Amino acid sequence: MTATEAPVAALSAEELAQVDAQWRAANYLAAGQIYLMGDPLLREPLEPAQIKPRLLGHWGTSPGLNFVYAHLNRAILAHGLDAMFVTGPGHGGPALLASTWLEGSYAEAWPEVSRDSEGMDRLFRQFSFPGGVPSHVSPHVPGSIHEGGELGYSLAHAFGAAFDNPGLLVACVVGDGEAETGPLATSWQASRFLDPRRDGAVLPILHLNGYKIANPTVLSRIPPSELDSLLRGAGWAPVYAEGDEPVAMHQAMAAALDGVVADLARIRRDGTGPWPMIVLRSPKGWTGPATVDGQQVEGTWRAHQVPLTRVREDPAHLRQLEDWLRSYRPEELFDAAGRPTAAVTALIPSGSRRMGANPHANGGVLLRPLSLPPVADHATGVQAAGESTSEPTRVLGQYLREVFRRNAGRANFRLFGPDETASNRLDAVYDVTAKTWELPSGPPDDRLAPDGRVMEVLSEHLCQGWLEGYLLSGRHGLFSCYEAFAHIVDSMVNQHIKWLRVHREIPWRRPVASLNYLLTSHVWRQDHNGFSHQDPGFVDHVANKAPEVVRVYFPPDANTLLEVAAHCLRSRDLVNVVVAGKNETPDWLDAEEAALHCARGLGIWEWASTHADREPDVVLACAGDAPTLEVLAAAAILRTELPSLAVRVVNVVDLMRLQPEAEHPHGLSDREFDALFTPDRPVLFAYHGYPWLIHRLAYRRANHAGLHVRGYTEHGTTTTPFDMLVRNRMDRFQLVIDVLDRVPGLLSATGPLRQRMTRAQERHRHWITRYGEDLPEVREWRWPGR
Amino acid sequence: MTATEAPVAALSAEELAQVDAQWRAANYLAAGQIYLMGDPLLREPLEPAQIKPRLLGHWGTSPGLNFVYAHLNRAILAHGLDAMFVTGPGHGGPALLASTWLEGSYAEAWPEVSRDSEGMDRLFRQFSFPGGVPSHVSPHVPGSIHEGGELGYSLAHAFGAAFDNPGLLVACVVGDGEAETGPLATSWQASRFLDPRRDGAVLPILHLNGYKIANPTVLSRIPPSELDSLLRGAGWAPVYAEGDEPVAMHQAMAAALDGVVADLARIRRDGTGPWPMIVLRSPKGWTGPATVDGQQVEGTWRAHQVPLTRVREDPAHLRQLEDWLRSYRPEELFDAAGRPTAAVTALIPSGSRRMGANPHANGGVLLRPLSLPPVADHATGVQAAGESTSEPTRVLGQYLREVFRRNAGRANFRLFGPDETASNRLDAVYDVTAKTWELPSGPPDDRLAPDGRVMEVLSEHLCQGWLEGYLLSGRHGLFSCYEAFAHIVDSMVNQHIKWLRVHREIPWRRPVASLNYLLTSHVWRQDHNGFSHQDPGFVDHVANKAPEVVRVYFPPDANTLLEVAAHCLRSRDLVNVVVAGKNETPDWLDAEEAALHCARGLGIWEWASTHADREPDVVLACAGDAPTLEVLAAAAILRTELPSLAVRVVNVVDLMRLQPEAEHPHGLSDREFDALFTPDRPVLFAYHGYPWLIHRLAYRRANHAGLHVRGYTEHGTTTTPFDMLVRNRMDRFQLVIDVLDRVPGLLSATGPLRQRMTRAQERHRHWITRYGEDLPEVREWRWPGR
Repeated sequence: MTATEAPVAALSAEELAQVDAQWRAANYLAAGQIYLMGDPLLREPLEPAQIKPRLLGHWGTSPGLNFVYAHLNRAILAHGLDAMFVTGPGHGGPALLASTWLEGSYAEAWPEVSRDSEGMDRLFRQFSFPGGVPSHVSPHVPGSIHEGGELGYSLAHAFGAAFDNPGLLVACVVGDGEAETGPLATSWQASRFLDPRRDGAVLPILHLNGYKIANPTVLSRIPPSELDSLLRGAGWAPVYAEGDEPVAMHQAMAAALDGVVADLARIRRDGTGPWPMIVLRSPKGWTGPATVDGQQVEGTWRAHQVPLTRVREDPAHLRQLEDWLRSYRPEELFDAAGRPTAAVTALIPSGSRRMGANPHANGGVLLRPLSLPPVADHATGVQAAGESTSEPTRVLGQYLREVFRRNAGRANFRLFGPDETASNRLDAVYDVTAKTWELPSGPPDDRLAPDGRVMEVLSEHLCQGWLEGYLLSGRHGLFSCYEAFAHIVDSMVNQHIKWLRVHREIPWRRPVASLNYLLTSHVWRQDHNGFSHQDPGFVDHVANKAPEVVRVYFPPDANTLLEVAAHCLRSRDLVNVVVAGKNETPDWLDAEEAALHCARGLGIWEWASTHADREPDVVLACAGDAPTLEVLAAAAILRTELPSLAVRVVNVVDLMRLQPEAEHPHGLSDREFDALFTPDRPVLFAYHGYPWLIHRLAYRRANHAGLHVRGYTEHGTTTTPFDMLVRNRMDRFQLVIDVLDRVPGLLSATGPLRQRMTRAQERHRHWITRYGEDLPEVREWRWPGR
Repeated sequence: MTATEAPVAALSAEELAQVDAQWRAANYLAAGQIYLMGDPLLREPLEPAQIKPRLLGHWGTSPGLNFVYAHLNRAILAHGLDAMFVTGPGHGGPALLASTWLEGSYAEAWPEVSRDSEGMDRLFRQFSFPGGVPSHVSPHVPGSIHEGGELGYSLAHAFGAAFDNPGLLVACVVGDGEAETGPLATSWQASRFLDPRRDGAVLPILHLNGYKIANPTVLSRIPPSELDSLLRGAGWAPVYAEGDEPVAMHQAMAAALDGVVADLARIRRDGTGPWPMIVLRSPKGWTGPATVDGQQVEGTWRAHQVPLTRVREDPAHLRQLEDWLRSYRPEELFDAAGRPTAAVTALIPSGSRRMGANPHANGGVLLRPLSLPPVADHATGVQAAGESTSEPTRVLGQYLREVFRRNAGRANFRLFGPDETASNRLDAVYDVTAKTWELPSGPPDDRLAPDGRVMEVLSEHLCQGWLEGYLLSGRHGLFSCYEAFAHIVDSMVNQHIKWLRVHREIPWRRPVASLNYLLTSHVWRQDHNGFSHQDPGFVDHVANKAPEVVRVYFPPDANTLLEVAAHCLRSRDLVNVVVAGKNETPDWLDAEEAALHCARGLGIWEWASTHADREPDVVLACAGDAPTLEVLAAAAILRTELPSLAVRVVNVVDLMRLQPEAEHPHGLSDREFDALFTPDRPVLFAYHGYPWLIHRLAYRRANHAGLHVRGYTEHGTTTTPFDMLVRNRMDRFQLVIDVLDRVPGLLSATGPLRQRMTRAQERHRHWITRYGEDLPEVREWRWPGR
């Protein structure tokens, strides 16, 4: 391989020496972290006792990352850039720890790891060491918004950070392994959503080091002409730096970056792409051991993790390690006190221009709260419970319209969704903003504009990745998604929750806005689609995760949805999942009642209960809009048919309140739980999702044995709304039968009622197969009032 | 738009009329399904009473699908092709129902929907109607292996079906909405893994109809030169058919297909690409209403679902619908009895050449069982429980090597994994097969070959999609994956489980091989990585799904892993999740014991228990390799320290046995459960994953109140294996403390033992932070024997 020739040398001899010194220093520090404890500057010959007992970490990608970091530093100084660094191959933690330590941002974050030999010793010891720091680019690393442990999301995160940050350059190293993932493959097209005037720039640096863990990578092996064609086809203008000879590579990379800076200035001026990017082709494990035990290592998959593995046991390996480390000439790079020398730091920027200190990467420091309108101003007027109906998400759309309007000047709020904003009935927001669209458009396109603040792309991965990047760089957002397809980002939300969990424990990381999901077009209303669109399990997935980060809400109507949404938009450092329907739903609570109910998170609906003056004979509990409607319909039947029965209706908005207080910050004490659900009466719980989640949350409660849960049990198809309830045995008639079955003493007295309920179910089945719609008395049912 | 000009007309006038008649007939039938009940041939003027009460379904994509189907039929006849049809926009169910009904395969599958007017009436009524058929291309549709409800997986499924099927052409319509998803975006690169000689061909037909639900699509709006560049960059040679004028479009599409057939013949002969593909650019809702209420519909997003919505209420809409339906001239397309006329059927193939009757799309009919070696031949020799150790997945790799060897001639087994086969220590398979690789290779590449049977690509989506396609077309496979990253395919496995659930109920669908996961590099052993790689929740995700389809296994050692794996490879129509470690693990059971234990699914390990002659004082239960080791270590401490305590050790391999028998086919009766776990003694359960899953499975058991579960509670980082257990409070010392806390009467007598356990935990913490590895007595611990 040879480097792409630069027509005129981009770097003077002095600059070249300086950038090379910086690179060598970072490489030394990266290798040191993997291997050494004690004598970090190798003042004495290397001894087995200095070698860590467990050799962990990823060397292979590290020299390439260090190379990019050093060159970006040079470009920041040369061109006065405001730049962030997103590390796709985030498992190359040693590189980012090394580079931030060199620039001093690391010691500012973690003063005990000072920029001297004592701090260097700590830097080495702590890496991948119990009680130390993880091996990846975690929240612990200053300047990072991306872990890169699970590959595929770097470029989406970079775009998220660049939106609404004109002047910011988000450099993003994309590994050629990561480039094989689906989310990364579609992220290239995100160039179509970046506005040259309103947004910052994303600079992808596709790092072709040729190998993954054990195999060559696809993009490094396809013909270079095809690679070029692929990238140009996604709207990029690639520049190449390819080779393994450091001097030529330094010149090529510096020339590439200078060219990029010039291109970006032109794009900002003219408003048109293509956007520049860099393809860096360099050996995996570059500058590390060329061969080990006769096998090639540098430039191969064998360099992926630890290139020399038997250093403690094998004196030859030990010598080879020592030779390797000394090949960087540490004595030139660090002074007697272990501080980087002037040559190393000459091309490192200072203050917040250091990528480890860029405030956008610790978004909480830049975060400005959203200006939120009072919920009451947008609430639906409610004369009496259940008298009127609303489409809850449509009401929310009107509220969000006002959020957009109030915060337009701050440009810090966006709505994300996979082509579903209008389908999810949030389209009132289009009165004040459009959908982001940078490609050509015209009639019959609807509400597209380059400066739109609604991000619509048919990729849940991009929506999620963009939003994560947007939040972690200090802004606000909401992701509205079909409930079933939130599972597409299960793994991404895992990583974001893990990130937040660690982030919250790091003193210098400031709180960021929560990641808010609105899951709608939910399991009970997928009339146009069917079984494939019916899956309420995202809540179960999230409920497994760190309780300090996770919240789940089931607002039963429009006003409670507004309350919950406003609460979520005010919250910090959380993942909020809100499940709400888009179809006409009775308005149960007025604004004031909704505020109180949501503040409590759950409560008795006395107006729907009977004989509130005594202990109930049965508790009908509900969470979710469809279950709430069914429970009220069942309660209405019971008050007519069994007027002496004391029925208590409990509605749950905040699902985590069901957990014990020791398990979740929102958990109820046992006393509070028993006061609502009784210690011993039958509780019939109609739940939106898989019924066993309620058992999992409540199994420690005194009355768990009395708890009977109805929910979705995977009986789905394309059918009517009420038929979905009947198929899953959560319809009003079934709930009445359940009450008859469970309240002691009712059984013998209620044969006729039970028969009527069974007959109603049969009538339903007959009706829908004949007429294709639900029974008129079900469709037109209204809460009868008290 | 104008059609790409064909130099010589591909179709004669007669052929053109025939293919057009077929297309018009299919379009008529598609629209009829959305709207009509009664008088399907429109013999009388259309009346409101004939209109379905709920108008559901997706018209927009349907005419394009019908167009492709008709042209493929023509090409099948002209060139003698053996072709399958994969419908990316599977929500266009009406199209596939129409086309399979026309060709007669539908009536063979569902005789009551006969190819006459009576059957046509049924075809129309049943669509999206309660008790009828779903609106998508579900398992119900003959010829389908792909629902297309959740977009993104069509092309991966097509490749899966093409592997090892030389001579088969898998045509795959890719919607331009779907093309925005990550999984689809990376699927283009699957061309790099298709072998021209060994495999069939995949023919992507990228259908640019311009719009999604509400927005234009990216690929339809980028400059055509960029689209061309993008596709060529992924290894394809696109041919274009673009326009809206039917005659020109018929000629263009026929010419494109004839060209494709010639190209494929050349590729099969020469063994080199690029592979041909077709870009079809046609209006959304083509041939439907051009405008409705003054707004453009055809060619816009407004055509996505139901173009005319107020047909029952609005006489103008009703007339417009009638005009639209009659515009296809049904009287020319169907005879008096409602049978398609000769013009319509002239270019439709017969027998198994009809795409709805291709046996590859009902893979069970082609399925040949794997020849499996006896487990005992590959079992690890075990002298006494816990005396020796093995790496379980390495032992499994040796077994799989033999599976590959025995079935080489059948070419019906592949192993899939995201670059982790060697990391997961299954690399013995490379003795007999290689990794599939069609790009250039050479040293230092390891075991790559065009005819390799191990599929390695860094995309869990591709692995999953390929395997699903491979299984549904009648072959066998195993997906080995890092446990945490199985979540990447959560949504895909949902869809596959839903597919299997429906498939099992369809009489003409034959059983297919199960989808087998080996989840390894699991939560307890992610030494090189850390928190981002620690997530055992995939099991929870799967456990929510249809119990008749789902199985979960936790083999505790090498021989049980072999037993479980062989069982899974023999099973049909299931999703099997096997969780097993790759690190050195004690061999607990010899081959015979393992067979017995796995057949039971769980059982008492008497050799590890004490005082087996009486009811236990405490039950120590375990599921998973790491928990099993800790439980045995705790049992060893207890037998020494509290020799009079009766400790029963129960190991669970088959997790679903914990459920009640009414809930899961593998569920234990209460009597059996009580016999193992006792009705009332404390049960301490050490579980591999999130502890509440055990509660969710066992909450109905008599002894649920006595059940205390330890598991992973999201306390992770880069640390030692034993430290992971300590952080999550599942280490042996904690388990002993738990016993002391829970067995009545033990508390006062055991202060010193408790103190020693607490001190051991402290010693551990001190040791790891000092030495970076686990206590020697933990690392070197061995089961003491009886």
